[in-house]
Amino acid sequence: MIDWIAFDADDTLWRNEEFYLDGRAKFFQILEQYDLCPEQIKEFDRFEVENIQYFGYGVMSFILSMIELAVDLTEERVHPADIRRIIQLGKDMLTHEVVVFKGVKELLESLSADYPLMMITKGDLFHQQRKYKASGLSGFFSSLEVVSEKDRSVYKEILDRHQIQPDRFLMIGNSLRSDILPVLELGGWAVHLANHPTWSHEDDPLQDSFPDRYLEVEGIPLVYPSLLGAGLVEG
Amino acid sequence: MIDWIAFDADDTLWRNEEFYLDGRAKFFQILEQYDLCPEQIKEFDRFEVENIQYFGYGVMSFILSMIELAVDLTEERVHPADIRRIIQLGKDMLTHEVVVFKGVKELLESLSADYPLMMITKGDLFHQQRKYKASGLSGFFSSLEVVSEKDRSVYKEILDRHQIQPDRFLMIGNSLRSDILPVLELGGWAVHLANHPTWSHEDDPLQDSFPDRYLEVEGIPLVYPSLLGAGLVEG
Repeated sequence: MIDWIAFDADDTLWRNEEFYLDGRAKFFQILEQYDLCPEQIKEFDRFEVENIQYFGYGVMSFILSMIELAVDLTEERVHPADIRRIIQLGKDMLTHEVVVFKGVKELLESLSADYPLMMITKGDLFHQQRKYKASGLSGFFSSLEVVSEKDRSVYKEILDRHQIQPDRFLMIGNSLRSDILPVLELGGWAVHLANHPTWSHEDDPLQDSFPDRYLEVEGIPLVYPSLLGAGLVEG
Repeated sequence: MIDWIAFDADDTLWRNEEFYLDGRAKFFQILEQYDLCPEQIKEFDRFEVENIQYFGYGVMSFILSMIELAVDLTEERVHPADIRRIIQLGKDMLTHEVVVFKGVKELLESLSADYPLMMITKGDLFHQQRKYKASGLSGFFSSLEVVSEKDRSVYKEILDRHQIQPDRFLMIGNSLRSDILPVLELGGWAVHLANHPTWSHEDDPLQDSFPDRYLEVEGIPLVYPSLLGAGLVEG
């Protein structure tokens, strides 16, 4: 039924969102000394989303948004030593250990025996390639696609280039907005990891609660049994 | 003789280095009020190269290096308003108009009639894709490869993936280090644009002044006549 199986990476195969939440918590700690009100700190989401048009997705965009917000909210009172701390915080995020979720290796081992696997991940090219190499998972994948956006046209371009029929393509990921909806719209299959952490910006709900060619699975250890159960892969 | 012709983009097809030089000049203007000595300002190159390991190549890395250097050289006296100016300077660089060199369109028109063309460009994925679309040149290319490094292994991966024999591959670019040497080492053909501006970091000299399968050409308008003259393409 399926020719190719593709995986998102951040928050699907390895931890990601918690490093952002941790970075954000450390950033708020830095800002604490400036007596800001909680409403101001909530501006962070707006800055981050507005800056996507310039910087795209990823840690560098996150760092630049933190610096801008620190200058803005403190009305230019932020101490340069704190700017330095923010940059260091970003460098730590860019070089942290890659923590692969439990069961990922076993799942990739099982699936890669029968299917070519693709990783489709969004963000800074350099950082994503670094994580791909550091994860120890690259040997399971036939193809790595780092993209700057995950919409229908991007998936279509990937499918066309690899000459994959949409209805023989399966995507597995944690984000309804980026991993599931565009693939379903193209006529592909999608497995949503419902209990994985997801950035609020990526959290568009499904319009149709039970679309065709869609499976919802709690987490990685249940992916293989669910695919078997649905007859999507052969045991 | 040749199956594929590939082009570098920045400083090969469109202006790039001058935007960095301009950004750097504006940055030095910002620093002027802090009474630094010229030796200190020269630290910029070192910061930029050291930060490649964290941020890779591109404008975001450039902005973050400027901010770090401003904090460092002023011994944390830099005014947050100047940090804001540096970020704005970076946003301007990321959204500037793409200025294609004279003769590029005609060259791509001639070559794309007979050969599939590939663009191989290094830097921020999001920014490179933006320039690719904004350049008006995307219609001439069969493939866009945005890479985070341009070394022998990266070219080899691209050639393998497209099933191209190295000795039937021609790369055209302005950087000996990134566009010419690794391709020659793999057994490919390379055309160096000798009079195009090039970042000093990209300026490794050729060990052998006349390697095989290598052409040196002054600029874009002379590429086609030189390829014809060398019998690499048919008129």
